[in-house]
Amino acid sequence: MTGARGDLAHIAHVELLTPKPQESLEFFRDVMGMAVVERAGQSVFLRGSNEYQHSSLKLTEARAPGLGHMAVRATSAAALDRCVARVERAGLGDGWVDGDAGHGPAYRFQDPDGHVMELLWEVERFVPEPGERPLLKNQPARVSRQGAAVKRIDHVNLLARDVHGCRTFAGDALGYRLYERIVADDDSETGAWLSLSIAAHELIYVQDATPAHGRLHHVAWWVDTREEVMRAADVFLDYGVPIEFAPSKHTISQGFFLYVFEPGGNRVEVTSGGYFVYDPEHEPTTWTPAERARGQAWGVPTVESFHYYGTPPYEGAPDASGRA
Amino acid sequence: MTGARGDLAHIAHVELLTPKPQESLEFFRDVMGMAVVERAGQSVFLRGSNEYQHSSLKLTEARAPGLGHMAVRATSAAALDRCVARVERAGLGDGWVDGDAGHGPAYRFQDPDGHVMELLWEVERFVPEPGERPLLKNQPARVSRQGAAVKRIDHVNLLARDVHGCRTFAGDALGYRLYERIVADDDSETGAWLSLSIAAHELIYVQDATPAHGRLHHVAWWVDTREEVMRAADVFLDYGVPIEFAPSKHTISQGFFLYVFEPGGNRVEVTSGGYFVYDPEHEPTTWTPAERARGQAWGVPTVESFHYYGTPPYEGAPDASGRA
Amino acid sequence: MTGARGDLAHIAHVELLTPKPQESLEFFRDVMGMAVVERAGQSVFLRGSNEYQHSSLKLTEARAPGLGHMAVRATSAAALDRCVARVERAGLGDGWVDGDAGHGPAYRFQDPDGHVMELLWEVERFVPEPGERPLLKNQPARVSRQGAAVKRIDHVNLLARDVHGCRTFAGDALGYRLYERIVADDDSETGAWLSLSIAAHELIYVQDATPAHGRLHHVAWWVDTREEVMRAADVFLDYGVPIEFAPSKHTISQGFFLYVFEPGGNRVEVTSGGYFVYDPEHEPTTWTPAERARGQAWGVPTVESFHYYGTPPYEGAPDASGRA
Amino acid sequence: MTGARGDLAHIAHVELLTPKPQESLEFFRDVMGMAVVERAGQSVFLRGSNEYQHSSLKLTEARAPGLGHMAVRATSAAALDRCVARVERAGLGDGWVDGDAGHGPAYRFQDPDGHVMELLWEVERFVPEPGERPLLKNQPARVSRQGAAVKRIDHVNLLARDVHGCRTFAGDALGYRLYERIVADDDSETGAWLSLSIAAHELIYVQDATPAHGRLHHVAWWVDTREEVMRAADVFLDYGVPIEFAPSKHTISQGFFLYVFEPGGNRVEVTSGGYFVYDPEHEPTTWTPAERARGQAWGVPTVESFHYYGTPPYEGAPDASGRA
Repeated sequence: MTGARGDLAHIAHVELLTPKPQESLEFFRDVMGMAVVERAGQSVFLRGSNEYQHSSLKLTEARAPGLGHMAVRATSAAALDRCVARVERAGLGDGWVDGDAGHGPAYRFQDPDGHVMELLWEVERFVPEPGERPLLKNQPARVSRQGAAVKRIDHVNLLARDVHGCRTFAGDALGYRLYERIVADDDSETGAWLSLSIAAHELIYVQDATPAHGRLHHVAWWVDTREEVMRAADVFLDYGVPIEFAPSKHTISQGFFLYVFEPGGNRVEVTSGGYFVYDPEHEPTTWTPAERARGQAWGVPTVESFHYYGTPPYEGAPDASGRA
Repeated sequence: MTGARGDLAHIAHVELLTPKPQESLEFFRDVMGMAVVERAGQSVFLRGSNEYQHSSLKLTEARAPGLGHMAVRATSAAALDRCVARVERAGLGDGWVDGDAGHGPAYRFQDPDGHVMELLWEVERFVPEPGERPLLKNQPARVSRQGAAVKRIDHVNLLARDVHGCRTFAGDALGYRLYERIVADDDSETGAWLSLSIAAHELIYVQDATPAHGRLHHVAWWVDTREEVMRAADVFLDYGVPIEFAPSKHTISQGFFLYVFEPGGNRVEVTSGGYFVYDPEHEPTTWTPAERARGQAWGVPTVESFHYYGTPPYEGAPDASGRA
Repeated sequence: MTGARGDLAHIAHVELLTPKPQESLEFFRDVMGMAVVERAGQSVFLRGSNEYQHSSLKLTEARAPGLGHMAVRATSAAALDRCVARVERAGLGDGWVDGDAGHGPAYRFQDPDGHVMELLWEVERFVPEPGERPLLKNQPARVSRQGAAVKRIDHVNLLARDVHGCRTFAGDALGYRLYERIVADDDSETGAWLSLSIAAHELIYVQDATPAHGRLHHVAWWVDTREEVMRAADVFLDYGVPIEFAPSKHTISQGFFLYVFEPGGNRVEVTSGGYFVYDPEHEPTTWTPAERARGQAWGVPTVESFHYYGTPPYEGAPDASGRA
Repeated sequence: MTGARGDLAHIAHVELLTPKPQESLEFFRDVMGMAVVERAGQSVFLRGSNEYQHSSLKLTEARAPGLGHMAVRATSAAALDRCVARVERAGLGDGWVDGDAGHGPAYRFQDPDGHVMELLWEVERFVPEPGERPLLKNQPARVSRQGAAVKRIDHVNLLARDVHGCRTFAGDALGYRLYERIVADDDSETGAWLSLSIAAHELIYVQDATPAHGRLHHVAWWVDTREEVMRAADVFLDYGVPIEFAPSKHTISQGFFLYVFEPGGNRVEVTSGGYFVYDPEHEPTTWTPAERARGQAWGVPTVESFHYYGTPPYEGAPDASGRA
C-alpha cells in the first residue's frame, strides 16, 4: 500500500474548454440537465443535482476544445499538504493559486503527460434557495427535471503518451489505487483504471495514439440507473447530439456507458453501474489486447473513434467521424 | 362476443376541469412534461410526446375540478355510425357537436352514470415543425426532455353509482371487453376493468362511495418503464406535487402505478407495465373483497383516500387528505 | 382495410428443429427459464411463465435446425373457418391435421415461401398444480425463478425470397396489418413488420440473401423490462450461449433486443418494449437502405450475420460466425 | 475524525441462526439464488455471485433465529491489531478464535448491546472451478441464474437498547463513519446509519422496543438494479416467502428496499441503490420523529412490524404479523 492512500477524496470539478460556448452551455444545461450556478469572465459554472459542492463543471470559452484543468479535493487540510509535498518532490508542481468560484486556494501542477491539475481542500457547499429545497434533506438539491438530469461528476479519462508513468505518479503522489489495466503485447501499459474509493474507476489513463500531450478522452457524469442512460440516449437522438457509442456495458469497470460529443467537440459520457472494490488486497485485473478484441462486455465492438479521438484534436488525426 | 367489438379504437383525449388553470397548466407542462399545442377560450390543449394525435388533454378553467368529457375514437367512419346507433338506442345520446381543436364532428352522450363522452372518427394528426422532427420517423414527435416526460394517455378511471350498469353499457354499446372485476359480498359489482385492445385496461369503473354522479377517479398517462415512474416520483416530491399513492404494482392489471393530485384537485396517474390479453376467450378475473384486502400486488395497503376521493369533490366527504 | 382483419388472435406456438436436442432443451429450460410441460416422441413442449396456453415451444429432434412449423390461433371457430377458406382459395392449403399436445385440430398450409404454418382454435389452457398456483390469480402461472425467466412468445421472423408476396398473403388471407417495411433502391420490399394487435410486430418477413426457401430468421420470447433483457445477457455470457447481437434498441419497432444462438443453431431473441399502434388509420413507415445504414436506434451497426444467417443454414453461405 | 478510520474494510459475513435449517437453506439457495460453498457441522456456508470471498452467510441450526455473529474484515494485518487493541481497551473483547471455513484467526468481541462480532484479516478467496469461470475476469464468479440472484452482502441492521452507545463504540473503536441518525423528542438517539466506505450505510443500529439485547433487525443482500429488487418481489410472492415491506425507496440512505422473512424467522432485505458520500467533511443528517412520520421517501408508511420485530423474537412482543 502506498503512503499516499487516503489523502485525496474525490474529483471536485473539471474545466472544459469550448470554441462554441453558447452551444456547449445549452448542451450541458438543456440536454444534460445541469444547473447554471454562476458566470465569471468567459466561464460558466454548472452542477449536477446531487453534488454537495458549488459546481462540477467550469465551461470556458477557448480557441479549441480540451481539458482546462481537473481538480481533486483532499480529505483534510493536512492531507492536502502531504499531497502537495509529494507532488513538489516529483518536480511537477506549478504552485498555489488563489481559489476560484466555489473553492479556496488550490495547488496547481501537471501530471507527467501535461494535464493541468489542482488539489484543494476548502470548498463552498451548495445551498439551495429557501423555495427550492429538496424534500429529502439528505440530498443537496432538488432533482433536475430537465433533459438527462445527470446527478454528479463520476470520472475523468485522460489520454497519455506514457500511461504507466502517469498512473504510477497518480498512485505514488496522489494515492490512487489501480483496479484494472491493459498491457500490450510488448508489455507496455496502454490503459489504467484508478480510484480513490470503492467505485470501480474515478481516473483513467489510456494511450494517446498521437504524439500530442495533455489531451482529454472524456468526462463522465453519473445517473442512478441504466434506464436513465438509455433515456438520455433518446434525448440526445432527438436534440441533435451525436452519439459516438450507444448504451452498453463496459468490460472494464462493468459500467454502463453512453458516449456523445458536446457541441464544442469534447467527448462526454453518461454513466451508471459498475462494480465495487471492497477487498483491501484487490489485485488489479490485467487485460491483453486479445481479450480486448472481443469487444465490450456483451461483445459490442468498440467504435474506432474511441481509439484516436481526443481533445484538443490532433492535426492530421481523423476527426470524430473518422475523416482525416 | 358482443357485436360492438372492434368499432372503437382508443381513448382520444380527456377534458379536465380545473379551478386553478395556471397552476394546472404548469403541472402538465413542466412536471408531466407535456407540450402545449394550442389555446382556445378558457382551454389549453396538451400532448404527450408519443401521441399521433393533436392532443390528449384539454385543460379547461372551471369552478370545480372534474372530467369535462372523454372522447373515444372509432376504428372507421362506418364503425362510428354503428356505435352512435347503439348509443341512441340506449337512449343516452345528446347528439352531434361540431368538432374541436384537433378533431372533427363528435357524437356526444352520457354514460349511465352521467359522465360526458364523445365518439369521433376524424382527427388531426400532429405534424412536427421541420426543425423539430424526431430522428426515428416511426415515432410522431421528439421525446420530451421535460419533467416526467409522459408518452401518451393510457386509461381513464370513472366513479359510478352502478358499476355493473356502466360496464354493461360500455360492453354492449361501445364494445369494451371486461378483463377484471371486483364483486362485493352482496354480489354487486364494485369495480370493472375494460379494454378495447390487448392492454389490460383502458376504461375502468369503480364504485362511488358518495351519492354523486359523473365523477372522475383518475386519468393515467403512460411512460415506457417502471424506472421512469419512479423518476417521476422523485420529480413530484421536489416540485411540490402531493403524492397520494407511491410507486408500486397493482394486483388488478399488474400495472405499475404512481398517483398524485394536480393543482386543480384531479387525481393523475403515471403508469407503465401491465399484462396483455392475447386469449380471445379470456375469462374475466373476479376478485372478492377478502382478496382485495391483502393490498396491492406486493402487499402494499391501498391508501384510504383512493376509496372516497374523486372530482368534483363531494360535499361532506373527506378531502384528499382525509379531512372531512 | 382487409376483410381478414380480426380473424386471427396471436401466434400460438412454434416448433423448432434441433440437431442437438439435449443441449437445446437445457438452453430453453435452464438458461431461458422455460418450463417443460410434456414430452412426446422426439419432441419436448415448453412454456414461458406468462402463457395461458399449454406451451409456446415444441422442440423436436431433427437433422438440421430450422422452423418445424408455426401456429396461429384464431379469434373464434367461425373466424378460423373464414381464414381457412381464404388460404384454400389462395391454393396454399395442405389440409387439416389432428391436433397435437396442447391443441385441437389444425389446418396446415405453407406461406408463399414454404414456411409450414397451422391455424387452430381449440387450445388447452395451462392449469398449475394446486401447490404451484401463482399468488396473483390474473396470471396463469408462477413466475419463473430460473435463468432469463422469459414470459411468453412474442414474435417470429421469417426469411423469404419474395417478402412482398409473403406479407401480402399474410395481410389478405390472415389479416395481419403492416406497420413498417424496408424498400430497396429498386423498389422491391426487403422487410415487412406485421401484427395482429397494437403490438409493433408479431410476424416479420425479411429478405433471404440465399436462394433457399422456408428458412427461419429468429423466434423471440418476451420479458417485461429492458433490465431483464440485460440480465439475460449476463446469464448468456456466463453459461456459454453465444451472443450474436448485444442488447440495444431497434429502429424498426423500437423494441429492445438481444440475439443469441441456441445450441441447435437457431437464432433466438429475448425482447421487451416497442411501441403500440392505436391509430386505426396507421400508415406503414417505409425505410430506405440509406436510412437503415445508420444502424439501430442509437446508431449501433447491425451485425453482419444478421443479414445472411438463418436456419437451416444454406450450403455455401457463411455460418453464424461469418466463416464461409 | 477518529483515529480508527480506515482500519476496517467491509462486513465479511454474518452467521444466521435458524430453527428450520432445511427451509432456510432452500430459501437462500433457491429463492435468493446463493450458492452453497461448504457444509460443516450444523452449518452451511453460502455466497452471492459477486463476492470475492468464500462466503457471506453461515447458516447454522439453532433453537431460535437470530444473529450468530457478524464479521468485519480489516484493511491490513496491522490495522486489525490496532482495532483489536481499541476493542480490548473498551473492555469488550472475548479473545482470539481459530478461524472458520473461509477465514483465518478472528478476534471475537461483543458490541455494547451484546451482538457477537469478529474482526479478521486472513480470508480465503473464492476460486471457481475451471468449467465455471465467468466470462468477465474482473468478476469473481459467474452470475447466478437462480431466483433473486443476489450479488453480495450489503449491510447489517442491529437492534440495540443504547443506540448512541453502540454507534459511538462503532465509530471510536471500529472506525465507522456516521452518515444519518434519528433523534427522538427527548434528544435520545434512536437510529444511526454507519459506513466504512462511500456507500450510504453498512452498519445500522436502531432502537430495540423491547428490553432484549443482541437482537437482529435484518441483513441485506445487494442486487445491481431496482428492477431486480422488484423481480425478487415477484419471485417471493410466488414461492411462499412472506413480504413484510414491499419494494420502495427509503428516506434514510435513499436505498431501494424489499423486506421478507426467511423461513427461520430472520428478516432479510434485498437492496439496491442509495447515495454515495464523497464529502470528507460530510455532516450527518439528523431526522426528527415528526420528519420520520411522513413515511419513506415517496410517502409509503413504514409497516408496524418494522418497529418491534427482531430476532430472536421477544417473549410477549407481537410476532411479525402483529399478533401478540
